Amino acid sequence: MLSFADRLDAAVRRCHNPVLVGLDPRAESLPEGLRPSSERPTVGETSAAFGRFCRGVIDVVAPLVPAVKPQAAFFEQLGPSGMMVLAEVIEYAHENGLVVILDGKRNDIGSTAAAYADGMLGADGQSVWGADAATVSPYLGDDSLKPFIDVAVRRSAGIFVLVKTSNPGGKMLQDLVADGRPLYRHVAEYVEASAAETAGSCGYGAVGAVVGATYPAQLVELRAAMPHTWFLVPGFGSQGGTAKDVAAAFDSQGRGAIVNNSRGIIFAHASKRYAERFGAARWQEAVEAATQDMIAQLRDETPAGQL
Amino acid sequence: MLSFADRLDAAVRRCHNPVLVGLDPRAESLPEGLRPSSERPTVGETSAAFGRFCRGVIDVVAPLVPAVKPQAAFFEQLGPSGMMVLAEVIEYAHENGLVVILDGKRNDIGSTAAAYADGMLGADGQSVWGADAATVSPYLGDDSLKPFIDVAVRRSAGIFVLVKTSNPGGKMLQDLVADGRPLYRHVAEYVEASAAETAGSCGYGAVGAVVGATYPAQLVELRAAMPHTWFLVPGFGSQGGTAKDVAAAFDSQGRGAIVNNSRGIIFAHASKRYAERFGAARWQEAVEAATQDMIAQLRDETPAGQL
Repeated sequence: MLSFADRLDAAVRRCHNPVLVGLDPRAESLPEGLRPSSERPTVGETSAAFGRFCRGVIDVVAPLVPAVKPQAAFFEQLGPSGMMVLAEVIEYAHENGLVVILDGKRNDIGSTAAAYADGMLGADGQSVWGADAATVSPYLGDDSLKPFIDVAVRRSAGIFVLVKTSNPGGKMLQDLVADGRPLYRHVAEYVEASAAETAGSCGYGAVGAVVGATYPAQLVELRAAMPHTWFLVPGFGSQGGTAKDVAAAFDSQGRGAIVNNSRGIIFAHASKRYAERFGAARWQEAVEAATQDMIAQLRDETPAGQL
Repeated sequence: MLSFADRLDAAVRRCHNPVLVGLDPRAESLPEGLRPSSERPTVGETSAAFGRFCRGVIDVVAPLVPAVKPQAAFFEQLGPSGMMVLAEVIEYAHENGLVVILDGKRNDIGSTAAAYADGMLGADGQSVWGADAATVSPYLGDDSLKPFIDVAVRRSAGIFVLVKTSNPGGKMLQDLVADGRPLYRHVAEYVEASAAETAGSCGYGAVGAVVGATYPAQLVELRAAMPHTWFLVPGFGSQGGTAKDVAAAFDSQGRGAIVNNSRGIIFAHASKRYAERFGAARWQEAVEAATQDMIAQLRDETPAGQL
């Protein structure tokens, strides 16, 4: 099996775009026809609605984009029945040829980190969740990241470590300066070294970085500092990041980054831009239009146009 | 309903000890009679074995200690069926009068953090998981912690933020010095301010800190700096922390800290100290002896002896 980095690179080149669609189902935002019918739905009913909705999104985006990113929090919020639907959504995305990045921002120490990695990462039969990659938080340090990297490499999977997140509050710790450089650069050094060690034939490694679209200057700085590291770029669209902002995430050939959009795509039917054109009933057409528009923006204004 | 801080304080005083039993089921460590009978057990069979084992531990420790801490990773490792058993274990612990701290070290930004908090925190009917408190990672900053605090306060629940973790690699980021003090002190300042703002009648707040038993000097320093903050102290026993090491976690009345022991208690039947006396068949007696021994050590060598 190809390494995760090579699989992701191949998927991006096959689709000619680096769009990552975030699957963040929220009960109050589902298109009208997909909401549970009862007034006070059970978690089982809401879970079923999440499943229908995510499969509907996947049906539209699978022919267009390389990857999806289910957000674990929204499924976990519904308890075991939500987690069951999460597993089904991951499977359905795989059946439709998508790379799946499970966004759980997990971490722990030693053998507990290994348990998370064991559950989340790897093809079906190796892992119960079967994600191609997972997001990981670095606060616990190198001995918490290493078990994730070991499992990922062994199973041709990947991880994305939080480096510089898209939210305003990220600066509280990430921008503190220690030994002459901000904290996020300390994390970046570890990530880049691990990426270089695990680099596949595409030149990128099994260990990627999360770097927000809302910090374009840091994207420039980190792209230069992390030549072997895949970037997962959140914050595009609803959070304010533009195609111009994310241009620096790519290498000169337009590779090495995927740009996430969650609400802006999956709930496009409710946005100013698409609501009138499609409305709730034609929500899947709104998803398609928003995806195509994002693809066009990245093609026109970033090096990803070469893909 | 009493605040989480007051409930925990009452539970600790009722039991006259601050022992927190970590529920970290690992398939390979289960007592012989409890292991799944098939050679290659399904995740469903292993989940069922985890459920039996955790209920067996709870049966023994519920009359002795104030609280348990299920480790989400080991349940999540088994997929949806493991998550179902996690929910059952939390419910069983509540039925037996225990305070439940769900150890998931979750976090995310804004409304996603709120989704985690909504799912995890609160009494049955408010929350699907129904934990009294959850552990949270701080790398994403204040706007990721605030949604957890808001939900926790609204639901009389609590959170424990990672401040200084027990693992050796924790130093990679946590000990970096910025603005004249280590990173963990920056986190500690935010946590203490939030704890002071939410302090219940016991003097402690809804926001606690995770501070490892393996760093006794930092326990002294942080106890002094965080007078309103409950400490959850991991690292006792297997990781090397002793009763003497954790003495500084308590205030002068022996309150304000709970000390976790996972493997040292739940897998006592396999340890040098108890294996000969009890063996696998009498594993619950080993759990009881290990719990009683830890209670005695903390009584004899820490201010918790006054409880």
